[in-house]
Amino acid sequence: MPADLIQRPFMSQHALAASRDEDFVAAMLAFELALADTQEAEGAIPAGTAERMREQLEGHAFDMSAIAAGIARGGNAAIPFVKAGRAALSDDLKRYWHLGATSQDVVDSALMVLLTPRLASLDALLLRCRRAALPLMQAHERTPMVGRTLMQQALPITFGVKVAHWALGLEQARRRLAALARPGLPVQFGGAVGVHSGLDEPGREGLGLSVMDGLAERLGLSAPVLPWHTDRQPIHALATAFDAVAGAAEKLALDVALMTQTELGEVSEPAGEGMGESSSMPHKRNPVRSAMIRGACRQIHGHTSVILNATAQPLERGLGEWHAEWGPLVDSALLLEGALEQAAVLLEGLEVHGEAMRRNLAVTGGAIMAEPVARLLTPRLGPDAAKGLAAEAAEQARRQGGAYADALEALLVSRHGELAAEFERADLEAASDPALYLGSSVAQVARAIAWLEC
Amino acid sequence: MPADLIQRPFMSQHALAASRDEDFVAAMLAFELALADTQEAEGAIPAGTAERMREQLEGHAFDMSAIAAGIARGGNAAIPFVKAGRAALSDDLKRYWHLGATSQDVVDSALMVLLTPRLASLDALLLRCRRAALPLMQAHERTPMVGRTLMQQALPITFGVKVAHWALGLEQARRRLAALARPGLPVQFGGAVGVHSGLDEPGREGLGLSVMDGLAERLGLSAPVLPWHTDRQPIHALATAFDAVAGAAEKLALDVALMTQTELGEVSEPAGEGMGESSSMPHKRNPVRSAMIRGACRQIHGHTSVILNATAQPLERGLGEWHAEWGPLVDSALLLEGALEQAAVLLEGLEVHGEAMRRNLAVTGGAIMAEPVARLLTPRLGPDAAKGLAAEAAEQARRQGGAYADALEALLVSRHGELAAEFERADLEAASDPALYLGSSVAQVARAIAWLEC
Amino acid sequence: MPADLIQRPFMSQHALAASRDEDFVAAMLAFELALADTQEAEGAIPAGTAERMREQLEGHAFDMSAIAAGIARGGNAAIPFVKAGRAALSDDLKRYWHLGATSQDVVDSALMVLLTPRLASLDALLLRCRRAALPLMQAHERTPMVGRTLMQQALPITFGVKVAHWALGLEQARRRLAALARPGLPVQFGGAVGVHSGLDEPGREGLGLSVMDGLAERLGLSAPVLPWHTDRQPIHALATAFDAVAGAAEKLALDVALMTQTELGEVSEPAGEGMGESSSMPHKRNPVRSAMIRGACRQIHGHTSVILNATAQPLERGLGEWHAEWGPLVDSALLLEGALEQAAVLLEGLEVHGEAMRRNLAVTGGAIMAEPVARLLTPRLGPDAAKGLAAEAAEQARRQGGAYADALEALLVSRHGELAAEFERADLEAASDPALYLGSSVAQVARAIAWLEC
Amino acid sequence: MPADLIQRPFMSQHALAASRDEDFVAAMLAFELALADTQEAEGAIPAGTAERMREQLEGHAFDMSAIAAGIARGGNAAIPFVKAGRAALSDDLKRYWHLGATSQDVVDSALMVLLTPRLASLDALLLRCRRAALPLMQAHERTPMVGRTLMQQALPITFGVKVAHWALGLEQARRRLAALARPGLPVQFGGAVGVHSGLDEPGREGLGLSVMDGLAERLGLSAPVLPWHTDRQPIHALATAFDAVAGAAEKLALDVALMTQTELGEVSEPAGEGMGESSSMPHKRNPVRSAMIRGACRQIHGHTSVILNATAQPLERGLGEWHAEWGPLVDSALLLEGALEQAAVLLEGLEVHGEAMRRNLAVTGGAIMAEPVARLLTPRLGPDAAKGLAAEAAEQARRQGGAYADALEALLVSRHGELAAEFERADLEAASDPALYLGSSVAQVARAIAWLEC
Repeated sequence: MPADLIQRPFMSQHALAASRDEDFVAAMLAFELALADTQEAEGAIPAGTAERMREQLEGHAFDMSAIAAGIARGGNAAIPFVKAGRAALSDDLKRYWHLGATSQDVVDSALMVLLTPRLASLDALLLRCRRAALPLMQAHERTPMVGRTLMQQALPITFGVKVAHWALGLEQARRRLAALARPGLPVQFGGAVGVHSGLDEPGREGLGLSVMDGLAERLGLSAPVLPWHTDRQPIHALATAFDAVAGAAEKLALDVALMTQTELGEVSEPAGEGMGESSSMPHKRNPVRSAMIRGACRQIHGHTSVILNATAQPLERGLGEWHAEWGPLVDSALLLEGALEQAAVLLEGLEVHGEAMRRNLAVTGGAIMAEPVARLLTPRLGPDAAKGLAAEAAEQARRQGGAYADALEALLVSRHGELAAEFERADLEAASDPALYLGSSVAQVARAIAWLEC
Repeated sequence: MPADLIQRPFMSQHALAASRDEDFVAAMLAFELALADTQEAEGAIPAGTAERMREQLEGHAFDMSAIAAGIARGGNAAIPFVKAGRAALSDDLKRYWHLGATSQDVVDSALMVLLTPRLASLDALLLRCRRAALPLMQAHERTPMVGRTLMQQALPITFGVKVAHWALGLEQARRRLAALARPGLPVQFGGAVGVHSGLDEPGREGLGLSVMDGLAERLGLSAPVLPWHTDRQPIHALATAFDAVAGAAEKLALDVALMTQTELGEVSEPAGEGMGESSSMPHKRNPVRSAMIRGACRQIHGHTSVILNATAQPLERGLGEWHAEWGPLVDSALLLEGALEQAAVLLEGLEVHGEAMRRNLAVTGGAIMAEPVARLLTPRLGPDAAKGLAAEAAEQARRQGGAYADALEALLVSRHGELAAEFERADLEAASDPALYLGSSVAQVARAIAWLEC
Repeated sequence: MPADLIQRPFMSQHALAASRDEDFVAAMLAFELALADTQEAEGAIPAGTAERMREQLEGHAFDMSAIAAGIARGGNAAIPFVKAGRAALSDDLKRYWHLGATSQDVVDSALMVLLTPRLASLDALLLRCRRAALPLMQAHERTPMVGRTLMQQALPITFGVKVAHWALGLEQARRRLAALARPGLPVQFGGAVGVHSGLDEPGREGLGLSVMDGLAERLGLSAPVLPWHTDRQPIHALATAFDAVAGAAEKLALDVALMTQTELGEVSEPAGEGMGESSSMPHKRNPVRSAMIRGACRQIHGHTSVILNATAQPLERGLGEWHAEWGPLVDSALLLEGALEQAAVLLEGLEVHGEAMRRNLAVTGGAIMAEPVARLLTPRLGPDAAKGLAAEAAEQARRQGGAYADALEALLVSRHGELAAEFERADLEAASDPALYLGSSVAQVARAIAWLEC
Repeated sequence: MPADLIQRPFMSQHALAASRDEDFVAAMLAFELALADTQEAEGAIPAGTAERMREQLEGHAFDMSAIAAGIARGGNAAIPFVKAGRAALSDDLKRYWHLGATSQDVVDSALMVLLTPRLASLDALLLRCRRAALPLMQAHERTPMVGRTLMQQALPITFGVKVAHWALGLEQARRRLAALARPGLPVQFGGAVGVHSGLDEPGREGLGLSVMDGLAERLGLSAPVLPWHTDRQPIHALATAFDAVAGAAEKLALDVALMTQTELGEVSEPAGEGMGESSSMPHKRNPVRSAMIRGACRQIHGHTSVILNATAQPLERGLGEWHAEWGPLVDSALLLEGALEQAAVLLEGLEVHGEAMRRNLAVTGGAIMAEPVARLLTPRLGPDAAKGLAAEAAEQARRQGGAYADALEALLVSRHGELAAEFERADLEAASDPALYLGSSVAQVARAIAWLEC
């Protein structure tokens, strides 16, 4: 895989640097040492065992390529790692190593250990997005722009309220992810078939679950109700929470990409040395960050669909379903962190072109105001005639390029003669002035801020 | 679509009966009438308007096929419905109809209204599953069976703990769904571009959001922070929560299907007149309920993937992304309710064959006990020799069909001579008796019950 | 399911009318009668049997709701249908009914029978799209417009070449689908476990496969190498071919939607009574057909993902995997036919606004021509300086609104003094004239036409 | 990403070694040099240019980390690569470098160059599977085993016919992939907006397409009709063909996994030093290859769903849709090659346990023969009574463990008295002997071989 050239550019470099094979081995080792610690605390292995294991293994140079090569035989990284660890221990310690554990305990827990700092980073990035969005919302609370439905100009909104909608999406997703991160991702510890065989036997009842709980605490993870070898609800919840964040980031990127279109030009991605350059066209400034976000998030949706289809796992251990989770889950986290780094930079440095927004509001000659105009006309003309007249004037203004109010007045006179006099020119103009027709935009910004800050 | 023959059999008939086109029209009407009620309460329209609308429309026979035919022009059901509603009103009321609303407000809110009782039904079915699982867990707290990893016999568990794992999966998913249902699904109300244009204008500041909040209350929905026309986090959360339940149900069905295999025969689906019959083979009893659950849930995963890929919607209204949500979302709910009806029946009537479980425990001549045997041997033989001897005896017992303890003893004598005498025959037998090796199974059932009931 | 309001509007009404439950029953009946015909021809059942079955059943009013209700017991429609058919036959014929067949034979074959005319319709629609695209390509062979990469204005193309790219996408997908349709979709006939048990027994060797081949011919289907009960390659090929067509239609819709944006206005969807109307905004003409196409195609992708994940089916019959295929496969066909009906209308009636295309070409003051200008400057200034100057002039023209050639000339003079004189004003203007810079657009249209017509 | 530990173990190590970042750079360089060659041959650049470029760049040590770091600015690897290449050339050559090309030309073509040997490898692996399947089919042409539908024992088949079905699935998918590989994957060459801007201008008409065609030939790729920057049908066809192969491999793995279940034991994965070992249970031999295949293929389905959803790309260049393709497409190829390496080893070394197959045929006391028995009884008892009696005897035999023929005879006597005498004991036994009831199994194997070898 030419990963550096086609895969890792979408990922957070910071996150990648903390998620190497070595880090995964370290997480597996942390699991095994915490297991020994916990079993020692429970009196299940002799005092001092864990400390001596730690001394022998913490600096140990595991042969990474041997571990990688050994995976083929058993199908997961824990098996060759556990072997290598045992081989490195002095003989009297070997029997206490990996005691009562199975490879799924090691792999699942190591993944959770590896992902825990990623959740913190994702949360921090989402908070950074929120911090960046708030001043944008406030600064543009009353900056009018056109709202577009089905990508057609519809009616005015403000740029502030648009940012508020982005921020709400991101914050909802942040809270969903935080609700999983707060208690901690779950430790896995169940032994060969999930019932602590050999550990929790007659005379030592309750030991298995106690060790599981103790392990969780030592590893900074949460204690699940029971081992979850084939109850993959925790993975489903995590993957779909990642996906929700991806959807929120992708919405931001989609809007930015649409607004940076040359003909709209309402925002620009933050300028930067060479950012957005084209290999052949010097005049272009491509919305590269938006493209990278969208590229990353689409890949995440694919990964999520793997998880959805692998949630049901057979009997006491998946046969491929479990194995299929690892890459997609970790890739999703790394892609998402990459996307959020871009999103944070976008929000922090977005160039907002208020004048272009105003220009675009005028592009239809005011015809986007047909709805308020129809409302103005309705009491006298009835809803159907009012809507019809407003539409006809809109079409005329669009074709002839004149002002909407003019087209309207002329049509009123020619079609409704005496009635025309009942409308003041000022009312026609007011009804067709976008800047006077911002609805709840300001109130929405205020409400969004209150919620974001609560 | 031959829906009755290839699609609806996977769905809840009860849910289908409550989710017809007529019900969707009723939900749209409920939205419009509640809107009028709220606007009247806010003083935005004359007193008595809503009551009169209700009188004129509540019994009204909407022309369903005209509404259906009208969708092609505007792309959603609200447009022809609103037209039909307006046409049916007396002239003086027409102007207050659908006031300040847009078609997405109507469709999204109607969907939420339609789905609200489905959430209640899903919760009830999941509680029914929980109620059915509890006595199964208790009754089989100590019923030994073999645990299987990668579908291979591994070590003993109990049937009770297996049911506990099913129940935990379902209950986690139930709580996830309930967390969305408890506050209520969100109302949608934002007007043309989501900022209450024309409603919340100078002199009437705050009206839009007030109406939104009031509408929510009247419709039994929750009030979102802001309108969510293109912030689809609520839909993502709902669809993925459905999918989580599907995953939990599918896990149950997968295990049941595997356990009903002729050679295993550890459970049977509940008997019933003609249930599971084959069109050509009289001797078969197919796990039809499991097949139907799996068939439904796989379709849900596809629907969910549509939602994942449609979460980012452009600007102020989706252009196909929104439209793509409706069918998958509603279909998912109906399929899921169908799957849970089957799951509830499965759990309530599952036939458990403890004798087959015991038979299967013995099928390897006790070789599944190689791990505890290795533990017994390790202190004297060292871990590698112990593991090797246990494995060799396992292989021999499997090939020759004798008892594991015999093969073990013979090997001990021939390989380790004098050491053999240090092992008591009783210890060898105890180490190889599955029923004495249930680990934390009983403790897990107790812990699961405590959590399920909390 | 409120299907008429939220699901069927995306589908072909014509296709829906030919795909009712009654049509599926008719297809199952066609299978059974063709089976009797074939067995009779093979001498496996008495002469005249098939004819008498046909007489008794062809007009028979099957109780649709009884069949639907009966599905729950066996998990597919064939079981109650076969029962109902047998019950309706005179006693002496009962034994020859469904002889040697299994329910999967009936359902799979009936689906193939049901889908066969859909493939013909899809092909016809794709040919209609091709016929509509050809004159558009020719008429606009030299109509300049701006090409946009990452949605940014890049360099000129022609509208003709854009249509050519749409047409190629659709035609590639058409040929892929036609390659499956030409030999015919495969019949299914294998009996209970796929090996013609009871039919092809000692003394009648070869009968099973002969009947399969004969059945295929009678039903207008193709004969597969072997029964394909759990070899779902044919379904995978069909579903992904549908999906390819969907992708091509969606590309057309995406481009049209982007080009209809108010600020671009380069095309409009065909006008039509009420088409594209908004429930609240009289001035809008929404690209409703594009939205419907995109809405349909996104749902198809979800259905396809169900098929991808259900291709591997266990042993001799799927346990849910098979069941999960039916709805997604048929829905995909109906949605796709709906999408193509829209696509054909779009291409046949698309309003092309050449003047808007010209206006948009000018919107950057010619700055999109920075690349050809850089080429012109390179021989004297070197590539880096040339690219830099072209870019700087582009930025200046964009900011100041003047002509690109002017900005360029001024910069040349101020920066490169004497060198400036070496450039003719006419060359600068030519290099910055989009209409002179259409590349291979014309040649591409010609090549595309040749290929489309071959 | 801890790729060596959780991602690459599912991939072909051989393929990975040929798909490094360096290989991607080499493919991009091959594109640029072939472009110069072609342009030189067309007389568009001075004679000798390409040769000199080759001399200066072929041994050049590109700074991989600088290229990787440079991707962030433009969003793809071609931009920094082209820069680095230009910088390494002598000044007089710079202007002919990357002439008329755009970054998408480089990346798409380089991907096709990189994947071309992978298609050859996949084909070779599929042929290896076919070669391994043929002798298995022949050797087990008449090895009876039980066919299982919905995972329940149904009726006898042979192991040979099961292998034939696996082989057909794989071969259908191979031919689908080969149909894409035979003409060659398509080159990409269209320049900035896909119309060879600046290359194919007045006076040089036709040059762009000629260069495209020439490039294809030089790179061992095929010439598309037109550039396909946003016509992604070729990618859709390739990705879904990969997915079809994945589905066929996954079917094999699923069957093997089910058949290796301890209680079935009908096949074993090939033995090998440490293969299938458990980290804790010495007696287990896990179907690790099957798990790895299933793990890989599930990931492929997720990648494919990314491609499905990215087929429609906007205007003249994707904005994230294109970017999202790279990783999933290449990952799919590498995962698939990994899966097929496992599949080939599986088929080549599969241990077939005929005695276990026979044992399982007997496990229901012969009750799986209820259908043929019912056929025997039908002429005298009528179909319903015959089916009923066969079922009742089946149930009795299953409960009491006796032979089916005995239970049947006893029931016949007790229920039908005099009629019982009309049935010969030998006929009852023959009707209930699985080895005499293999249907078309042998004929199917012969037909499959004929097709596989054609």
